[in-house]
Amino acid sequence: MIKRIEHLGIAVKSLEESLPVFESLLNTASYKKEIVESEGVRTAFLRVGESKIELLEATNSDSAIAKFLENQRQGFHHVAFEVNDLDAELERLTAKDFQLIHTTPKDGADNKRIAFLHPKSTSGLLVELCQEKTD
Amino acid sequence: MIKRIEHLGIAVKSLEESLPVFESLLNTASYKKEIVESEGVRTAFLRVGESKIELLEATNSDSAIAKFLENQRQGFHHVAFEVNDLDAELERLTAKDFQLIHTTPKDGADNKRIAFLHPKSTSGLLVELCQEKTD
Repeated sequence: MIKRIEHLGIAVKSLEESLPVFESLLNTASYKKEIVESEGVRTAFLRVGESKIELLEATNSDSAIAKFLENQRQGFHHVAFEVNDLDAELERLTAKDFQLIHTTPKDGADNKRIAFLHPKSTSGLLVELCQEKTD
Repeated sequence: MIKRIEHLGIAVKSLEESLPVFESLLNTASYKKEIVESEGVRTAFLRVGESKIELLEATNSDSAIAKFLENQRQGFHHVAFEVNDLDAELERLTAKDFQLIHTTPKDGADNKRIAFLHPKSTSGLLVELCQEKTD
């Protein structure tokens, strides 16, 4: 079951420049910063209602965020939906012919197991499904 | 005060093609369809948690959605944050040098007063602020 928009991922060239903008926009301070070495990203999180805004800056040129910013301007990158059973959701969506980028969930930022769906099967929207790790 | 992500606006070439995809993805049926003549859009809404997904199809070639799709692939178009006092938020953000596309709120879909911020002042993210109409 899909519970809520967990976060929106926003690709930015510079966290130093963009974080104050989003703190000002949402009138709230970032509650967490985190480097995800495996993804080559430095992140900052802000809360809005039951959701979060995750700003994503590349830490190296191989990062998916660096490659994204080579091809388009900074801004929206992906939406993450929280699910209560990631494996069951991936099975349900595979059966409905959604294309998975990750057939096996991997570790993401913010203590989550995550998997992405390919935008080809979602009308162009890059979709992450995530579940809080309980261990 | 910004309360929550009210909706994500997703630009699609064809509601007929993309609505079943999002109904399948979110495992829920669209609860409302609406044509907004003034904006040249046909919309369909789906619920996810306290937020909504708004699919947007152009009804004519002058529509902002038609112009968007001329320049980039379908997918994310804007994020709308619900506020409790739209006029006060616009005043607060103007004072902080955010650039408004609409200095005066206008009527939007789904019984809302809305105003957009220019992506130049939000690190490339097209942001709508909206407030439920009470009259």
